[in-house]
Amino acid sequence: MKPAIVCFGEVLLRLSSPGKELLLQSPRFDAHIGGAEANVAVSLHKFGHRTRVVSALPDSTLGRACADELRRHGVDTDSIHFGDGRMGMYFLTHGAGHRPAEVLYDRANSSFAIAPPATYDWASLLADARWLHVSGITPAVSAATAEAASQAMQAARKANVQISFDCNFRARLWGSRSPEAPRLLTRLCEQADVIFGDDRDIAFMLGFKASAADARREAADVAFKTFKHLRYIVCTERARHSVDVQQLTGLLFDSKNAYTSRSYPLHSIVDRIGGGDAFAAGVLHGLLTGMTPQESIDFGAAAGCLKHSIPGDFNLLGVSDVELLLSEKGGDVRR
Amino acid sequence: MKPAIVCFGEVLLRLSSPGKELLLQSPRFDAHIGGAEANVAVSLHKFGHRTRVVSALPDSTLGRACADELRRHGVDTDSIHFGDGRMGMYFLTHGAGHRPAEVLYDRANSSFAIAPPATYDWASLLADARWLHVSGITPAVSAATAEAASQAMQAARKANVQISFDCNFRARLWGSRSPEAPRLLTRLCEQADVIFGDDRDIAFMLGFKASAADARREAADVAFKTFKHLRYIVCTERARHSVDVQQLTGLLFDSKNAYTSRSYPLHSIVDRIGGGDAFAAGVLHGLLTGMTPQESIDFGAAAGCLKHSIPGDFNLLGVSDVELLLSEKGGDVRR
Amino acid sequence: MKPAIVCFGEVLLRLSSPGKELLLQSPRFDAHIGGAEANVAVSLHKFGHRTRVVSALPDSTLGRACADELRRHGVDTDSIHFGDGRMGMYFLTHGAGHRPAEVLYDRANSSFAIAPPATYDWASLLADARWLHVSGITPAVSAATAEAASQAMQAARKANVQISFDCNFRARLWGSRSPEAPRLLTRLCEQADVIFGDDRDIAFMLGFKASAADARREAADVAFKTFKHLRYIVCTERARHSVDVQQLTGLLFDSKNAYTSRSYPLHSIVDRIGGGDAFAAGVLHGLLTGMTPQESIDFGAAAGCLKHSIPGDFNLLGVSDVELLLSEKGGDVRR
Amino acid sequence: MKPAIVCFGEVLLRLSSPGKELLLQSPRFDAHIGGAEANVAVSLHKFGHRTRVVSALPDSTLGRACADELRRHGVDTDSIHFGDGRMGMYFLTHGAGHRPAEVLYDRANSSFAIAPPATYDWASLLADARWLHVSGITPAVSAATAEAASQAMQAARKANVQISFDCNFRARLWGSRSPEAPRLLTRLCEQADVIFGDDRDIAFMLGFKASAADARREAADVAFKTFKHLRYIVCTERARHSVDVQQLTGLLFDSKNAYTSRSYPLHSIVDRIGGGDAFAAGVLHGLLTGMTPQESIDFGAAAGCLKHSIPGDFNLLGVSDVELLLSEKGGDVRR
Amino acid sequence: MKPAIVCFGEVLLRLSSPGKELLLQSPRFDAHIGGAEANVAVSLHKFGHRTRVVSALPDSTLGRACADELRRHGVDTDSIHFGDGRMGMYFLTHGAGHRPAEVLYDRANSSFAIAPPATYDWASLLADARWLHVSGITPAVSAATAEAASQAMQAARKANVQISFDCNFRARLWGSRSPEAPRLLTRLCEQADVIFGDDRDIAFMLGFKASAADARREAADVAFKTFKHLRYIVCTERARHSVDVQQLTGLLFDSKNAYTSRSYPLHSIVDRIGGGDAFAAGVLHGLLTGMTPQESIDFGAAAGCLKHSIPGDFNLLGVSDVELLLSEKGGDVRR
Amino acid sequence: MKPAIVCFGEVLLRLSSPGKELLLQSPRFDAHIGGAEANVAVSLHKFGHRTRVVSALPDSTLGRACADELRRHGVDTDSIHFGDGRMGMYFLTHGAGHRPAEVLYDRANSSFAIAPPATYDWASLLADARWLHVSGITPAVSAATAEAASQAMQAARKANVQISFDCNFRARLWGSRSPEAPRLLTRLCEQADVIFGDDRDIAFMLGFKASAADARREAADVAFKTFKHLRYIVCTERARHSVDVQQLTGLLFDSKNAYTSRSYPLHSIVDRIGGGDAFAAGVLHGLLTGMTPQESIDFGAAAGCLKHSIPGDFNLLGVSDVELLLSEKGGDVRR
Repeated sequence: MKPAIVCFGEVLLRLSSPGKELLLQSPRFDAHIGGAEANVAVSLHKFGHRTRVVSALPDSTLGRACADELRRHGVDTDSIHFGDGRMGMYFLTHGAGHRPAEVLYDRANSSFAIAPPATYDWASLLADARWLHVSGITPAVSAATAEAASQAMQAARKANVQISFDCNFRARLWGSRSPEAPRLLTRLCEQADVIFGDDRDIAFMLGFKASAADARREAADVAFKTFKHLRYIVCTERARHSVDVQQLTGLLFDSKNAYTSRSYPLHSIVDRIGGGDAFAAGVLHGLLTGMTPQESIDFGAAAGCLKHSIPGDFNLLGVSDVELLLSEKGGDVRR
Repeated sequence: MKPAIVCFGEVLLRLSSPGKELLLQSPRFDAHIGGAEANVAVSLHKFGHRTRVVSALPDSTLGRACADELRRHGVDTDSIHFGDGRMGMYFLTHGAGHRPAEVLYDRANSSFAIAPPATYDWASLLADARWLHVSGITPAVSAATAEAASQAMQAARKANVQISFDCNFRARLWGSRSPEAPRLLTRLCEQADVIFGDDRDIAFMLGFKASAADARREAADVAFKTFKHLRYIVCTERARHSVDVQQLTGLLFDSKNAYTSRSYPLHSIVDRIGGGDAFAAGVLHGLLTGMTPQESIDFGAAAGCLKHSIPGDFNLLGVSDVELLLSEKGGDVRR
Repeated sequence: MKPAIVCFGEVLLRLSSPGKELLLQSPRFDAHIGGAEANVAVSLHKFGHRTRVVSALPDSTLGRACADELRRHGVDTDSIHFGDGRMGMYFLTHGAGHRPAEVLYDRANSSFAIAPPATYDWASLLADARWLHVSGITPAVSAATAEAASQAMQAARKANVQISFDCNFRARLWGSRSPEAPRLLTRLCEQADVIFGDDRDIAFMLGFKASAADARREAADVAFKTFKHLRYIVCTERARHSVDVQQLTGLLFDSKNAYTSRSYPLHSIVDRIGGGDAFAAGVLHGLLTGMTPQESIDFGAAAGCLKHSIPGDFNLLGVSDVELLLSEKGGDVRR
Repeated sequence: MKPAIVCFGEVLLRLSSPGKELLLQSPRFDAHIGGAEANVAVSLHKFGHRTRVVSALPDSTLGRACADELRRHGVDTDSIHFGDGRMGMYFLTHGAGHRPAEVLYDRANSSFAIAPPATYDWASLLADARWLHVSGITPAVSAATAEAASQAMQAARKANVQISFDCNFRARLWGSRSPEAPRLLTRLCEQADVIFGDDRDIAFMLGFKASAADARREAADVAFKTFKHLRYIVCTERARHSVDVQQLTGLLFDSKNAYTSRSYPLHSIVDRIGGGDAFAAGVLHGLLTGMTPQESIDFGAAAGCLKHSIPGDFNLLGVSDVELLLSEKGGDVRR
Repeated sequence: MKPAIVCFGEVLLRLSSPGKELLLQSPRFDAHIGGAEANVAVSLHKFGHRTRVVSALPDSTLGRACADELRRHGVDTDSIHFGDGRMGMYFLTHGAGHRPAEVLYDRANSSFAIAPPATYDWASLLADARWLHVSGITPAVSAATAEAASQAMQAARKANVQISFDCNFRARLWGSRSPEAPRLLTRLCEQADVIFGDDRDIAFMLGFKASAADARREAADVAFKTFKHLRYIVCTERARHSVDVQQLTGLLFDSKNAYTSRSYPLHSIVDRIGGGDAFAAGVLHGLLTGMTPQESIDFGAAAGCLKHSIPGDFNLLGVSDVELLLSEKGGDVRR
Repeated sequence: MKPAIVCFGEVLLRLSSPGKELLLQSPRFDAHIGGAEANVAVSLHKFGHRTRVVSALPDSTLGRACADELRRHGVDTDSIHFGDGRMGMYFLTHGAGHRPAEVLYDRANSSFAIAPPATYDWASLLADARWLHVSGITPAVSAATAEAASQAMQAARKANVQISFDCNFRARLWGSRSPEAPRLLTRLCEQADVIFGDDRDIAFMLGFKASAADARREAADVAFKTFKHLRYIVCTERARHSVDVQQLTGLLFDSKNAYTSRSYPLHSIVDRIGGGDAFAAGVLHGLLTGMTPQESIDFGAAAGCLKHSIPGDFNLLGVSDVELLLSEKGGDVRR
């Protein structure tokens, strides 16, 4: 059996109003399963990897049904803990034209938030793993999840499992715990081999101030100085003409060089959520399969671009779909 | 302007799986607004009364949309407080055949639960009122709502506003506050002119034990002895052959007599939720419009029966619909 | 080519709320095409006959789309006149449990109502016909349609085309024209070989009063005396336990004998509308194919029963489906 | 209580085929409530104003349900008269690509059309009002509504209630009454403080002919000369590249100056209907809250632009949503 | 890890018309995954067992998506072979009232049908198994699947894996291969420890003719004589009042005794398909967990009854749901 | 009666996932009827022609329902043969953004594929015809359909019925019969008056190799030399910026001149399938109604462009819709 990619984070139920409607314009919600780390796990499975989500969900018909939906997409869900607490959720109103999308989080006191760090036996959970992925949302959820994330990374480091961390800063989630955020995020970045984040993330954590010239390169330099395990720092640049018309580019820095992907115009966006996770999964796929840094950022940017065409949080496309876009032949109708 | 009926309780977002499906069998939820007191308020409005819901909801697009949906059905929502906290919800799986329905509450830490009693200025909220209705769910939600319910009733009593209380005991909602439940429920029953409840409710509150013979009459006698303002105690009897085939009868007791309605066979039930609230609203309509006790319990039972034919928590039918059923002429197709 | 069955009447757009919902409970209507005569035409086509609907519809994308939907079910729509006026419609709320269905007609000033009698060249429309079917709704729509129906029947009689008339009395449609109704209906019955109607219809037209004993037979005797072309008078008996639980029996009278079908219990009714038209089509199929009176009423009753299992106004089942029910073997799953 | 904005006009049921389908491509219609004045009322309520719709609807389950849907969005519907007549409707086929949208009106003989002017007691309806809004659709509906509109304006003028009038010329609605249109529209414009209309409207009413140079300014000058109460004349300029790709600009003229808003590109239009009403409501909000003319036209154009992103006739967004767009920071996902 | 239950059979895509509609009445199909052996595997997983489906599916986005849907419900799908051929399907029209359901198979030349027996390495597939389940549909699909089923059973017998066989005779599937059916089915029954089948199945295979008295017991005696490994023969009795109103009883025979379950009335059937597979899974669960024969047939009949309340082919309920029904307390709403 | 246009080809059931979803993302398929020749027949009927589809379908409720759906759109379906075999289908995943659409054919062993050439009596089928249209898909389906197409063309030629052939090359359909494709296609082109095809089609059939300069003209010259009945060769040029943003131009060659249509930008494509058939129908309409070559290619290109705005395979728009686009006035909302 291939070594596993382990993703630690909350699995969320997303409730969105149909089409371009506002909340409750019609009396119905579309339901999807998501969560930054689950999104990465699903996408990596579709790219051919064995992936496991470590999380906690309520022991109810709802919690079980959400785990089922995740298992459907090939992720190993046997390590999900079913316990007390509620289902973490968010309500999504899709954006359109000049009206931005809106996300309303409703995840306080979720099973994941209240599960004590001892819920997870990391030595065992990582025994067959080659990679651990965590995002900055996990420490934002609660003190317990912040501690659990830190323990996971320490166990991974000890077990020679490589680590990626996606900063994914969400001020609203940290709430009153915001003052702690820089310290807790830094603690996790210190363990990471790969960081997804840009100059604003580095600035937030380390108090760094960029000169006008090339903020991203400068931030990368600071990061490489501060985080001793760091090999790559990766981010996207999103140019936004309107809610519906955007442009996406991927950037990857190692300690010396910067690699930039092709820029993809995004119009008629089907689903904006999960684009960053699809991008991260794409870059990780490149690194995991021995692609060069340039190939990795190219693969990641194409994957992130394609995600915008798929309803829901997950990128359900495979390597051949990404390669078709990379080939620049594109497609129209495949028969 | 007619004097108002004031209903104090939580407004809930109900998310149900479509048709007879289990949760997430298809990736969609049907959305309805409900809550015991809101249900009574809507039904009384449809019967021609001016009704007001006093409650608290989150100050978000979601909370506002839920209040809009309530306003749509004619209820005055101007006294709803928009503040912190989350939207109270429940997940519903409809029953079918021999499979019971399932309700999963997700209402902890809702805006209603955390609103301090001082949120509500009862003197002003009741100034134009003739009736106050509260259910036993309100004190179950939190210590704050229990206190607010008590203050509401005291203010009503002072203002000569009549009071009805629907025991509606839900063990799961009380949770760790269960030991307090009998005392808190008794405190509210002591103020009530009309109580909806049966011998099990009286037994739970007062420790009463029925002899085999006629538990409901005995319980009523105990209640009339204990609760000095009580004029009527009202309940239903639900004979259940299966989840889908039931029989519904209404009973009303005053201090001397018992009044029993016709028994309605219920088959092909469209929506089981809210039947008790529709029944309560029907009985209250009778009492508010000067019907005799027999007429009131007849109207209530017919209203409760009809509710089972309507999707959602609300009974949206009017007086003429209830009267058509009472006329025993019934109907087939009205053209 | 087989000689045609010509049906003259209004083609309606039916807008119904989904499932068991009340109007606008969710912001959507299900759309079906119907109309008493169109229903008969579709059912007879499914039984293997060549059928033509003569009618008038608005010359708009909507009117054309409604005609398309009728053509889909095999009816010849080439004789439909497209002209001024609006689309005739009705709004349907399905019944459930003890709540009756509701039909709201919105057909005043429809293209059919305002089309002058000269719109229809009956000599040509009936040139290849063997049967003309009209219902009592047609003369109720407007003075113009009443005149057109009368002209159609005279032309049919002249051309040796047999005639059936379904009384189908609808007080609301006649409105202020009610006083004329008995005379106009009688004028049509006088031409008919087959009348669908019961003692109430005969009483309404002819002022007849039944003794207690056997009103239907008595009414039939009066009809046979009054209407010189009459061969059969046919009706159903619908016993109603609730909106959802009914029992259906067919009765056919010739001048001497009465023929009664098996009684079908109707529960879990899918769609109540069009049952009478399906029954009429079934009886006509029997008469058209040389069945005995007993076989004809049996076929009609089974067809009427089966219609209740099909969404929409049309009975879309064929002869073999009816025969399966008649065989009393019934079925469960046909694989 | 804040003084009210009173809007007088027809409330319509809109039936549209789902998504981009043609009529009846699938057997379903999406239902929305609309109507030029109702649209303005809803939008002004969302902007924080107290609004009332004065209208007439059928006294049926359908008419009541339509009023409920309007009340849902915060408008005071207590002054709607329920009486005879039918529900005014329109059928909408959404446009797409190079295929224009299609509106089929079906509003002849509606309750609104046939309600006599005496239905409305304007002294009482305007007693707590600060503003009256009417559109040119109202006089087009029938002679009775034209008269009622005129009486409403006279009463408003007498009561010192300000008046806005949106020309909204629809040739098809006027039908055979077209020759009267210029006179009737002029009669209403004479009372107005604010007119929404462009040079084509002025030309139609007053027979004015623009020189090539600046038709809109010239028309405004003519209007200011003709209409003695007029303070502002306001219109939009819609550049259309295809059905789906357009550009929207707002223009406001006072007797001396012209004010032009930013131009908004409109692509991926979600719903084209109601854009003009949302624009009008935005401008009125500016004028009602003491904004400068420039600020008012800016607010109106942004509101009109945003409406194109919302399904249905109503602009359901609030002041903060418009301000976000005006801030030019725009948005992508609001979390 | 618990030893596995291995189920060998075709995984089918089921396309059903929505609700009670006929095929294409509205332009949509509901999609479910099913297949006799897959149904048993899913149900046994829900009862707490580790289950594996061995099958063959097309190597296409469709085949993969169908396998995903199966994996969602907890079944191990890693042994499904993805290869040439098409997706096996069936079209389902739900029955209603007196109209039977209709199944149209479209499974010829499916990937499963054309996969050569050597596709499956039974020694390895059964290495961790304790039970093998196959139905009579598998040998009906093609000569190749008949041979593969036989090889599977031989391998199981060799590996001391117990075997159940569900006769499930479908004449239409055998088609021109019908003459071979008795021989091929007998070959499989000879290996079975448990047979699901009744006297008609035994008669079909062995030419046995029952005397009037007790055909099922007689057939069981013949089966016990003929099939040397047989421990239990199990069947249901389905009394059918109409398509919608039925009664279900389970019967289990060992070589000496007969065990009969409670009889369950079935009304308002939600989904008729998969009832037999749910029953089989229930009985197997009893036998696998050491229940007595009486307890096993009771559990099976309750499971089979409950399946009729669930949309789709799968019984998704768990042990506690079945036990609630068995407790005869039943339920109404579980909160 | 007008002479008929006869179209010979397979009628397919198309199953597509809703909106922009991938297959089975939600458990539902949208159903449409299509097929290259049926698409042309429907479009020509909407342009006012009498059209007939000659084909073969399964004699089942499904096959009948598919024919009904075709008849709905005005095509004469009386010549469709109902027999053995299965329903030809394809599964469609709509494309979006940078993700191409995907078509999965599932049409092997369809009723059309297995119907022997003698199924069709061409002398009779073409007796009232003026035009025969066949596409290159028909010979690709099976040897039997290739032979039938050839016989149809010979019969047409003999009966002075004009012939159009749309090359429509699909490698996957030809499968193992690919080596025969050039010969079989050539045999059909030899009979054609009008060929829809470009230089790649000519190259595939005739082995022609274009010089760099003007491949399409060169190919046309070769075609005119080879195919003695050829009057016009017609094709489109599709420039593709992404899956969602394209540009469409029509080209028509006679033996001397080339005619080029306006170029239409295609964005927000609603449905990509059937665009080529709508184009062909448009060009044929021009030729059939005596338009000049320039007018014909203009009409065809506008028709093809408009098809992209309509869900399903069929172009359901009429002549006036095409003329509105050709007028370059376009439209926004037609009221």
